[in-house]
Amino acid sequence: MTMQSAPNAVAQQTKWVYRFVEGTGDMKDLLGGKGAGLAEMMRAGLPVPPGFTITTGACNQYVAAGPGFMETLFAEVRANLVLLEKEAGKGFGDPQNPLLVSVRSGAKFSMPGMMDTVLNLGLNETTVLGIIAQTGNARFAYDSYRRFIQMFSNVVLGVRGENFERLLHQAKEKQGVTLDTDLTAEVLQELVGTYKRYLQNEHGITFPEDPLEQLRLSIEAVFKSWNNPRAVTYRNHNRIAHDLGTAVNIQAMVFGNMGNDSGTGVAFTRNPSTGERKLYGEFLLNAQGEDVVAGIRTPRPIVEMGDVLPEVYAQFQQIAQKLETHYRDIQDLEFTIEKGRLFMLQTRSGKRTAGAAVKIAVDMANEGIIDKAEAVQRVDPMSLNQLMHTQIDPNAPITRIAKGLPASPGAASGIVTFEADDAERLGKAGIKVVLVRTETCPDDIHGMIHAQGVLTSRGGMTSHAAVVARGMGKPCVAGCESVSVDLPGKTFTVGDVTVKEGDQITINGSTGEVILGLVPMVQPALSDEFRILLGWADQFRTLGVRANADTPEDAAKALEFGAGGIGLCRTEHMFMAQDRLPVVQAMILARNLDDRRKALGKLLPMQRQDFVQLFEMMAGLPVTIRLLDPPLHEFLPSYKDLLIEVTELRIRSNDAARLKERQALLRRVEELHESNPMMGLRGCRLGLMMPEINEMQVQAIIEAAITVSKKGIKVQPEIMIPLVGHVNELKAVKKQLEATAQEVMAHHGAQVEYRFGTMIEIPRAALTADQIAVEADFFSFGTNDLTQMTFGYSRDDAEGKFLQQYLEEKLLPANPFEILDQEGVGQLIQMAAEKGRKVKPDLKLGICGEHGGEPSSIAFAHNIGLTYVSCSPYRVPIARLAAAQAAIATEAVERDR
Amino acid sequence: MTMQSAPNAVAQQTKWVYRFVEGTGDMKDLLGGKGAGLAEMMRAGLPVPPGFTITTGACNQYVAAGPGFMETLFAEVRANLVLLEKEAGKGFGDPQNPLLVSVRSGAKFSMPGMMDTVLNLGLNETTVLGIIAQTGNARFAYDSYRRFIQMFSNVVLGVRGENFERLLHQAKEKQGVTLDTDLTAEVLQELVGTYKRYLQNEHGITFPEDPLEQLRLSIEAVFKSWNNPRAVTYRNHNRIAHDLGTAVNIQAMVFGNMGNDSGTGVAFTRNPSTGERKLYGEFLLNAQGEDVVAGIRTPRPIVEMGDVLPEVYAQFQQIAQKLETHYRDIQDLEFTIEKGRLFMLQTRSGKRTAGAAVKIAVDMANEGIIDKAEAVQRVDPMSLNQLMHTQIDPNAPITRIAKGLPASPGAASGIVTFEADDAERLGKAGIKVVLVRTETCPDDIHGMIHAQGVLTSRGGMTSHAAVVARGMGKPCVAGCESVSVDLPGKTFTVGDVTVKEGDQITINGSTGEVILGLVPMVQPALSDEFRILLGWADQFRTLGVRANADTPEDAAKALEFGAGGIGLCRTEHMFMAQDRLPVVQAMILARNLDDRRKALGKLLPMQRQDFVQLFEMMAGLPVTIRLLDPPLHEFLPSYKDLLIEVTELRIRSNDAARLKERQALLRRVEELHESNPMMGLRGCRLGLMMPEINEMQVQAIIEAAITVSKKGIKVQPEIMIPLVGHVNELKAVKKQLEATAQEVMAHHGAQVEYRFGTMIEIPRAALTADQIAVEADFFSFGTNDLTQMTFGYSRDDAEGKFLQQYLEEKLLPANPFEILDQEGVGQLIQMAAEKGRKVKPDLKLGICGEHGGEPSSIAFAHNIGLTYVSCSPYRVPIARLAAAQAAIATEAVERDR
Repeated sequence: MTMQSAPNAVAQQTKWVYRFVEGTGDMKDLLGGKGAGLAEMMRAGLPVPPGFTITTGACNQYVAAGPGFMETLFAEVRANLVLLEKEAGKGFGDPQNPLLVSVRSGAKFSMPGMMDTVLNLGLNETTVLGIIAQTGNARFAYDSYRRFIQMFSNVVLGVRGENFERLLHQAKEKQGVTLDTDLTAEVLQELVGTYKRYLQNEHGITFPEDPLEQLRLSIEAVFKSWNNPRAVTYRNHNRIAHDLGTAVNIQAMVFGNMGNDSGTGVAFTRNPSTGERKLYGEFLLNAQGEDVVAGIRTPRPIVEMGDVLPEVYAQFQQIAQKLETHYRDIQDLEFTIEKGRLFMLQTRSGKRTAGAAVKIAVDMANEGIIDKAEAVQRVDPMSLNQLMHTQIDPNAPITRIAKGLPASPGAASGIVTFEADDAERLGKAGIKVVLVRTETCPDDIHGMIHAQGVLTSRGGMTSHAAVVARGMGKPCVAGCESVSVDLPGKTFTVGDVTVKEGDQITINGSTGEVILGLVPMVQPALSDEFRILLGWADQFRTLGVRANADTPEDAAKALEFGAGGIGLCRTEHMFMAQDRLPVVQAMILARNLDDRRKALGKLLPMQRQDFVQLFEMMAGLPVTIRLLDPPLHEFLPSYKDLLIEVTELRIRSNDAARLKERQALLRRVEELHESNPMMGLRGCRLGLMMPEINEMQVQAIIEAAITVSKKGIKVQPEIMIPLVGHVNELKAVKKQLEATAQEVMAHHGAQVEYRFGTMIEIPRAALTADQIAVEADFFSFGTNDLTQMTFGYSRDDAEGKFLQQYLEEKLLPANPFEILDQEGVGQLIQMAAEKGRKVKPDLKLGICGEHGGEPSSIAFAHNIGLTYVSCSPYRVPIARLAAAQAAIATEAVERDR
Repeated sequence: MTMQSAPNAVAQQTKWVYRFVEGTGDMKDLLGGKGAGLAEMMRAGLPVPPGFTITTGACNQYVAAGPGFMETLFAEVRANLVLLEKEAGKGFGDPQNPLLVSVRSGAKFSMPGMMDTVLNLGLNETTVLGIIAQTGNARFAYDSYRRFIQMFSNVVLGVRGENFERLLHQAKEKQGVTLDTDLTAEVLQELVGTYKRYLQNEHGITFPEDPLEQLRLSIEAVFKSWNNPRAVTYRNHNRIAHDLGTAVNIQAMVFGNMGNDSGTGVAFTRNPSTGERKLYGEFLLNAQGEDVVAGIRTPRPIVEMGDVLPEVYAQFQQIAQKLETHYRDIQDLEFTIEKGRLFMLQTRSGKRTAGAAVKIAVDMANEGIIDKAEAVQRVDPMSLNQLMHTQIDPNAPITRIAKGLPASPGAASGIVTFEADDAERLGKAGIKVVLVRTETCPDDIHGMIHAQGVLTSRGGMTSHAAVVARGMGKPCVAGCESVSVDLPGKTFTVGDVTVKEGDQITINGSTGEVILGLVPMVQPALSDEFRILLGWADQFRTLGVRANADTPEDAAKALEFGAGGIGLCRTEHMFMAQDRLPVVQAMILARNLDDRRKALGKLLPMQRQDFVQLFEMMAGLPVTIRLLDPPLHEFLPSYKDLLIEVTELRIRSNDAARLKERQALLRRVEELHESNPMMGLRGCRLGLMMPEINEMQVQAIIEAAITVSKKGIKVQPEIMIPLVGHVNELKAVKKQLEATAQEVMAHHGAQVEYRFGTMIEIPRAALTADQIAVEADFFSFGTNDLTQMTFGYSRDDAEGKFLQQYLEEKLLPANPFEILDQEGVGQLIQMAAEKGRKVKPDLKLGICGEHGGEPSSIAFAHNIGLTYVSCSPYRVPIARLAAAQAAIATEAVERDR
């Protein structure tokens, strides 16, 4: 992520002012977004109140050179003002036919409300009379005048608006009224005098009568507002460069409140919620924009404009259509009707929901407005997430009581239970429950299966609860540290709120929110347009997309969403199943090889059946199976619970046999205990210390492959070794496992093809990838662990202890576990890819960390020439779209070369 | 570490045999070490029994081409045999004047006892009579013949020696004698017949009578022995290439057992234990080499040879002197005197103790035999370790009961105690104790202070015990997992051995050995030569050497050993002191900023005083102070102990107040608990989350610097930020701390200069060193953590769980925590050094991990242009010497270019 910076050309410009008719829509750098939009509409022949734009370069020059620059600039402004007077047919400061203008900031990137604006500029004691003469509405004229003084004083003179509000309030009290609109013209006229006297007496300021003086001061004020604190903060937050500057738009005012042939409104060219191709918006007769915003009157649907102002409506429809066609995107329009005459005040791309974005992109391509490549580029891949998980109805009111980590997306409601057994019992009885634990452990799996979602007060994005829930596609909020769980008491508390077992809560695993009670949900529905768009994406992308899938259910989801294979099957998740865990524990706790082999013998048929199902499901697509990876203690009972139990048994000394048994177990758990298990005995280290585990797994893979091929189904197993740091590790494991594979094939008298590859997830593996490539058919970058090691962050600890604060304080540009750190981790990946391909040009390269489903990381993978990314099934559509966008962007760059 | 490999030239040689007179001492590749040594002595005109050498190339050719090659080769051997007969004045197979030869292997690198040798070759039923005629000693002749048959059968025919031993035993039984020497000539003659019949009857082998056949078969046997399993294993272990081949030396036998004017002996040209310049060795009259080895007769000191064979002794002295001067090194000589005639059988560089190596190098330089550069190169830097710590007397018998990790070097004896309080009490009373614990924690510090050494059954090289003991310079054996400690029972057991409190043990922290009882020790004594040699080293080295020192005592040691500054002062070690730990704990456990500041306020004067002492001690040399680095839980009581205590208190429920207090503490410890503390909240992350800790430390540093400069002593503080991974971290900490420094200086109205730098110990920091260099005056590579992160190894876990096995199975070439992994970790260091220097050419670069005291790593640091290495004070001499050797090697390479 680099900051957007101003081209040097801008700073060298010497023409400081552009009339709207001189600009074009692509001059955003120079004229800002608003100025360019107005110029483009003007150029398209649409009715736009005339005006001109002072360039962003002038702003920068003012910031650099100081107020002295205003002499030069204002000469040019005055010359343009003369032309504006001609276009408007009014005179600036003309007592009979006064021209009023708005002075608005407008930077390249929209910074809503961050900088200042002055309306109705040009009013003074004489021009106000001209307005009355023209409108016959003294109340409107003096109210405009009062508002102008207030706005100008605030923006230009630095006198805070509340001082004027106080005077206004006093006036209302004196009149015995409560609404502004109940004040008469006379009272407002008097108020104008009060405002001016207040400025004179309290601040020693004589309010400027000269419209040119008003204009000059306003322009300076807008320039200065570029660097006001809130604007600086906003730019920092949104990564907008500070050297862009703002343009200033001076435009003739038009008034929608000049009777029932006047009005104002906003509209979208299509429905921004659904994407339906139908004008969508609202309007008010005899009103100004402020009135719509103030909510005093209820605006009417735009379609009703056809009844009251049929000609204007027809014209507006035409213009809307024209602008949409011109900009080739849904437009967000602002307009004013002054005495039956339509004026367009703004056009810009309209914000839309994810569903609308998909529909609009596909529709527009079908309508021939854009091509398929543009349609693919129009949708933010991450927004597809909204379409794929149950969401909380965005319009529903909620009572949020806590926020944890968004550990597994989607929302879930149910009654609170604290025990896995209860969750299972109730779940089986058809009652929706949310399982709440301090943290979960393998013993809780059955409860998780039958719960709608899981909430834990400890543990990070890779905690047991998070990993298992994501695997199950079940919503989970993890590490919600403000939640204090009292397990024996069967309650949890957050601050003053206590939630008891049986109370209803809702969790939002996409945001981490914990909400009291049940909340209306929006169910995901994959539209036809969604499938069409992804089909188009596939035509463009060159990067493969696979899914991380551990079960046949995952694999089915992956296929449904268009995965081209399984990029990561984590066999340890297969070990977590309720019926297997005791066998796995027996295997781990075995004190000798014989006992361990016995336990492994029981696991073999289960594993084999897992792989048979996966191979059958994937029917010929590649399936990458990672051998056992995590530290063994993850499969064992909690050390803490065990220690407490043993201590209790020891003191109570009423059950010597059980004490002895539990002590033995505790000792073994202690033996397996590690200071930093993330960097301890796991991955291929485990397979080298206990080869029999790997051997069982490879036997299961090869036997399953044989079984499935015998049914005439093609199989493409890819055996993957985790956590390799030195080529010797890979050599040793490969030797051992190839022997096993050969033995199994010989035993069954059958041959199956398989590939043999490695994770690249240890920095040293990336640094020595040229050596490792010699031994591997493929590399899969485990970006989760690689990020952990490259940053020296334990994710579980970092996210709870300091990462949030780092992100808030901008010590890191983004959470590196969500968005790949291209600078550091990416550098290693690119280095490894280059070193690997140098040795083995056809080396398959993939990413199988969570980054495999994150668009900027996917673009990176495409750009450095990886073969595929692999991500959770629900992220597959995101990855397909992001990969297509990356391919299109690359083509565009190459075309431009 | 690359394997030594044979130059291609050898394989292309077509001359297969070199007479000794044809060879030279530098032809080791072709002639092997022994052959080259014999040739060189021959060339120098020394009396060497004549002979010739079959080249290593012939061996390789034999291995490659098979037995057919023997035709070609043997023709050349026979031609040389004819010349040998002339030189020896004897005939091979001549019945009257038979030539006997030895056939010995001799590779480029000494592989003692790994390959085969045949002596007395040429004996048969007729030549034995010639020997009797020549010597008048039938017993000797038949004994030689019997031995020849046995040796030949074993080496060449593959009949195991024990078969012949059995026959020999039967002969002795039959004679009613117990010693070989009691067998008469007749019995031995009969035994020769028995041996031959045994070969014929049991193995169907007719023992070859033809000396040429004997010779041919022996040569083939030596060739084959190159690839026998023990030789292959030896080469693997010693990293000797398998394609070198062995040479075969055929040499006329001479006999030292032909009367009292004959003899044999071995000698060193100087004392290999002390380095004293005096012939050192022993001899036996009327004896062969075997007799010396067999230990049946006691050899006499070499000097007594002057009494019995004055002329021969004088000649030998001259030769010894000549060889030493020729080889410019202490020589290990073998000789035989045959009837008053001296023959040299071997010369090679003598193995020596570290002390002798130092003295010999310095003496030889002073004698003008070598120059200072050579003297500096002659001493293995690591061997200096022996000279600097108390060592177990290498000659003392020991009962080793266990082996753990060599966690802190040196040896210590004392009575066993299990409690820190007891260790303190006894230690204060002048009783030497060894503190034995499962593992130590900060609460044990006072016991460690008063113990001679520490033994723990858990924890690695970076465990609390290891780190603290190294800091104290106290011997420690850590992670001795075979030791089972029963704390309540006050005993520990290893297998069957139980050691009780009060029993005496000895630990060797240099090797990890645990030994029963007290053992004689050798105290370190730094000789004048030691200081002279290091002085010379300093003249050559360009790499700076600093010390890691946390206390004034460390600093004093560092200065004594010649450190040029402090490269790493770990402030956390200052926090571990007994009087400070409670304050540190209060600081950590503080629930709010006020309480934390209060505790920090108490620590400030202590820290300031630490720094005042360090600055005064180092008097103007740079002192690099690392801000607090480790995870906070390291300062807290053990979680396990606390959990047990709380559980006990809860059940017994007799002390509610204490339960409440301990529960609160337990909760806080749990809050601070991390899954992988190594990668959690520590280093600069800690300083960013709790800036007040850093601020206190910087205040202490700056105030100390002001105090000391006011005394007129120069100070060079270098403030170092640990664990930076992203430049923003360094920017933020730097901003905060520079403000503190400025404030403190303003407050005291004084200015002191300080530098501001960072550790590079996170892979990401190395990868983005160009960004980080902008913010830093110096980089210090923390190679311990960098190795952990680059390999993904938690050292504490790896060393106990898999690293030993990895090393045994050669999965890693060396322990990367001892010897820098240049390929992976070194690649990152080099990358960071280059990136950093590109941005800031004068960036100071150092290494402050343990590798800073390891010679190959120091050479690497020199080669990539680092500024300095920093290591423990005791390693400073090693580093000075290694740095000098690296500089000399670089100069040599550049000279050769």
